[in-house]
Amino acid sequence: MDTNSGLRASLTPGDVQAVSPALAHYTRTAIVDGIWKRSELSSRDRSMVTVATLIARIQTLGMQHYFAKALDSGVTPAELSETVTHLAFYCGWPNAFAAVDMLQSTFAGRDIGLDMLPEVSPELLPLNEEVEAKRSTQVEISFGAISQGVVDYTTNLLFRDLWLRPALAPRDRSLVTVAALVAAGQVAQIPFHLNRAMDNGLTQEQASEVLTHMAFYSGWPTVFSALPVFKEVFAGRNN
Amino acid sequence: MDTNSGLRASLTPGDVQAVSPALAHYTRTAIVDGIWKRSELSSRDRSMVTVATLIARIQTLGMQHYFAKALDSGVTPAELSETVTHLAFYCGWPNAFAAVDMLQSTFAGRDIGLDMLPEVSPELLPLNEEVEAKRSTQVEISFGAISQGVVDYTTNLLFRDLWLRPALAPRDRSLVTVAALVAAGQVAQIPFHLNRAMDNGLTQEQASEVLTHMAFYSGWPTVFSALPVFKEVFAGRNN
Amino acid sequence: MDTNSGLRASLTPGDVQAVSPALAHYTRTAIVDGIWKRSELSSRDRSMVTVATLIARIQTLGMQHYFAKALDSGVTPAELSETVTHLAFYCGWPNAFAAVDMLQSTFAGRDIGLDMLPEVSPELLPLNEEVEAKRSTQVEISFGAISQGVVDYTTNLLFRDLWLRPALAPRDRSLVTVAALVAAGQVAQIPFHLNRAMDNGLTQEQASEVLTHMAFYSGWPTVFSALPVFKEVFAGRNN
Repeated sequence: MDTNSGLRASLTPGDVQAVSPALAHYTRTAIVDGIWKRSELSSRDRSMVTVATLIARIQTLGMQHYFAKALDSGVTPAELSETVTHLAFYCGWPNAFAAVDMLQSTFAGRDIGLDMLPEVSPELLPLNEEVEAKRSTQVEISFGAISQGVVDYTTNLLFRDLWLRPALAPRDRSLVTVAALVAAGQVAQIPFHLNRAMDNGLTQEQASEVLTHMAFYSGWPTVFSALPVFKEVFAGRNN
Repeated sequence: MDTNSGLRASLTPGDVQAVSPALAHYTRTAIVDGIWKRSELSSRDRSMVTVATLIARIQTLGMQHYFAKALDSGVTPAELSETVTHLAFYCGWPNAFAAVDMLQSTFAGRDIGLDMLPEVSPELLPLNEEVEAKRSTQVEISFGAISQGVVDYTTNLLFRDLWLRPALAPRDRSLVTVAALVAAGQVAQIPFHLNRAMDNGLTQEQASEVLTHMAFYSGWPTVFSALPVFKEVFAGRNN
Repeated sequence: MDTNSGLRASLTPGDVQAVSPALAHYTRTAIVDGIWKRSELSSRDRSMVTVATLIARIQTLGMQHYFAKALDSGVTPAELSETVTHLAFYCGWPNAFAAVDMLQSTFAGRDIGLDMLPEVSPELLPLNEEVEAKRSTQVEISFGAISQGVVDYTTNLLFRDLWLRPALAPRDRSLVTVAALVAAGQVAQIPFHLNRAMDNGLTQEQASEVLTHMAFYSGWPTVFSALPVFKEVFAGRNN
């Protein structure tokens, strides 16, 4: 180990132990043998939520560990690739490129080649025209005069293209979007996307557990800031 | 390429292609041949907005690419240096130092030396005493009793020094400030600085296009959180 | 120096000078010979606030410098280790691991071994049952039906375990928590923790100066977004 540079792609339990035995202990008991074993959310979902959290905050240390864990938990290379593509739009291109930097190593190490990755121009999933018409009309009325460019790209590039790509199920696309919003503290955008996630099949129990999981990965404050918003969304759907 | 480390200063299109052909495609069609060619904002302005976004979020991967692009788009070395200095105050010193780490390489590679960089103590631009008196009085009344240190540094170091340095035009200083606020999700600070930016010459069309541009660089959620604030500022000025 | 990579653990004044003599000047006059010499907050407290800011935003560049400064200012290795452990919960595990990556080098360079670090299972500080009962009841009523997992971990892992660990005084634990919240822009969580910090012994003068200090380290906008919240907390306590 190069003790001077301190710039590594991942840590070992021994590294954590050398700085904080207590942190190593909490990692093992509360995370590895704790939340990851709770039944409210599958390991596959937890992997996707964790990956989205890391990408949303450019936490490159640990990406390779969780990319591997995602692949080992049933996330396909195509789904992982598409998650990075999706989050380019929701976290910004530089965040996605930081993930590319790390994921390239993971893919190379597992001989995952182009034939296993999503097509550039696949046949798109069918669009729910009614739902999309309502969304686009609302955004056009609210913000068309403020930034027509944003409004047009949102419709054409996001909701009539990206969201319809078959490489990631709409429910999973929503799941990583919601996780990215919580991780980035973008609470104002949670209501639309959490409702969409639940329309796409995420259950309330799963959404609750996303917060439990994320408390450890993006920190308690991000989760406590998201809780009242989740509460309002849940209430709105249960009426 | 070192496939194990994954810690690089920039990516090639081939790196992106190896992880997500779709992301490489979107990068080319929507960004390189897309937004950068829209006429609503010059390449020079787009470079400054992009650099501010990267600095605001410590997205070191890509900094050298966009520093080079800025210099090639007409941003002078002095302006780029001063942008880093300015954003030390608006994004925090460690963010500026991360940019220094990268910009040093760019400057060294182009033989840009001290003689091309802004003076430490130049003759300052004239201060608009009336505008500044109004600002400082308001802040003193609101927060003088809460943190006199913040209030005093804000007046003496920011508005009677930094903002008057001639190495960056007030309009450009405002442009990178607004971009940094949007990128960091600091929406509460946008009204003051967007108004100031427009007082300093940024047009409404340019401000709109900053958001379109930033959707790709800091992500859709940051832009959708900024849209209602931009809307209110535009409305306040059009009355 | 490798002028191509630009990935270093810390910068020298000469590095900053090469990119921006003005930034080097401000660093010296406003920070090194400026805020660090103000009497309103000790160097020890400033070190802890700075370290918390760096961890909250994964600003790895500079961590080794400020870890060393903390140790030289009277923060013990055990306190520094425990700060990282504490912030794992308040900034997220990946942020803490990024700090581990850097702190391991600092500890190795000073021959700081396991015997100087906090125990995994120490005797805990006594719990103020009344205060904790009020907190846990309030959170249970507000969010028990939204995410019982979050609520339970908050009680059992945070307030009945982490906060009672003796390796960091409650006042210091609160100090780094408040600093992390300001740095991350998590203003909604400030009232609870700032009140707790002041209950734990942080004075209003010190809290004010935390903001002055942080203006430089996490940037003016984070501080101006925190000011109205600090104002309300101060007002609530002075009535």
